[in-house]
Amino acid sequence: MSLLDDLQWRYATKKMNGATVPKEKLDYILEAARMAPSSSGLQQYKVIVISDKALLEKIQALAYNQSQITDCSHLLVFVAWDGYTEERVSEVFNHMMDERGLPHSTMNDYKNTILNLYGPLGKEWQAHHAAKQSYISFGLAIAAAAEQKVDATPIEGFLPDKLDELLQLKGTGYKSTVLLPLGYRESENDWLVNMKKVRTPKEAFVTEMTLADAASLNELPAMGSLDNFAQK
Amino acid sequence: MSLLDDLQWRYATKKMNGATVPKEKLDYILEAARMAPSSSGLQQYKVIVISDKALLEKIQALAYNQSQITDCSHLLVFVAWDGYTEERVSEVFNHMMDERGLPHSTMNDYKNTILNLYGPLGKEWQAHHAAKQSYISFGLAIAAAAEQKVDATPIEGFLPDKLDELLQLKGTGYKSTVLLPLGYRESENDWLVNMKKVRTPKEAFVTEMTLADAASLNELPAMGSLDNFAQK
Repeated sequence: MSLLDDLQWRYATKKMNGATVPKEKLDYILEAARMAPSSSGLQQYKVIVISDKALLEKIQALAYNQSQITDCSHLLVFVAWDGYTEERVSEVFNHMMDERGLPHSTMNDYKNTILNLYGPLGKEWQAHHAAKQSYISFGLAIAAAAEQKVDATPIEGFLPDKLDELLQLKGTGYKSTVLLPLGYRESENDWLVNMKKVRTPKEAFVTEMTLADAASLNELPAMGSLDNFAQK
Repeated sequence: MSLLDDLQWRYATKKMNGATVPKEKLDYILEAARMAPSSSGLQQYKVIVISDKALLEKIQALAYNQSQITDCSHLLVFVAWDGYTEERVSEVFNHMMDERGLPHSTMNDYKNTILNLYGPLGKEWQAHHAAKQSYISFGLAIAAAAEQKVDATPIEGFLPDKLDELLQLKGTGYKSTVLLPLGYRESENDWLVNMKKVRTPKEAFVTEMTLADAASLNELPAMGSLDNFAQK
């Protein structure tokens, strides 16, 4: 199976059957998430793994009562930094230099560059920026789960502030960004499993552009007009 | 090769050799990006593909003169919605219902729910939210490139407003989010290729948590204290 086959196989599973994902598959999925690239290699995120039913029930109440939260085998909670600080960035870069056998000072200029760049953008922007990195990791976890024939449901529908409170994240420097229950589909009770997978048609999703194209766009095009270039 | 093997093989290529990625591999990578899941299935993003050297040179000037921008075969520019509107959401949902042979009205309640949820959060939050979805797609494009043994460099270091101006995105409803040059490594001139790949150690990246753990956290823990749970 290729990655594309895996992506065709997967879907946002609506009904899981409660079966357990073997530890080696769970570890594989987490390892793919860990190997994800991130901006400046900072890995501004982590994953909290929850299989304790009592805690899952409390999370479900904060996630519009979605059944996968309690019918999954393991719930992955992606959490990302709530902002950039000199201390946090230094900790990561120092670890990187230690692993590469280079002096910590190697990264000083680069560190100052990004701190000077991110600082003025404010805490809210920084939290969004860190969260975006966690979505790359999230995407790779989804791909890894599909490769392992483990079902997964990307979930953004939850109350992040309440979840942060429940998981005692306040004060840790992390905020929850997105959820991924892992488990196995219960096809006979899943309304989505036999629905057609729908995506933006390729000719609208992909736009080829040259300098002449960009230069010829003298007037502001309306929403959707990127599609005009799609046939090239 | 498994996905994990592919993720070990890949790295943020610093020097590319100018060789061309075959069309079938490019199409494969774009198809993986297109198959990515997104919040509510809205696919709030697209990909602009650029191989025109004249345009790449202008982009390079807006991207800290990184050599991969012009030494790559194709540059993927991920662009995402700058906000949510009733019109945009309806267009996607109507297409989805048409493809599934269901009436447009099927999605009305859900559509109103998300518009009522996102509306008060404002345009800036909405743009970040849409951009986050593009990072899932970006992650899958990175995985697909690695599977195809095509090198790729995730790039956030560019001036997004200037790039949006150059690509005439202003007024289209899209903003650039992240870049992915595709090509082939020139190993002898790439300082990063033989460096150790460094990631957060697994025991710090993954935290297992139970309700008892969450409940026992009475005092606000300091940054990094999530690691306390890592050994369980």
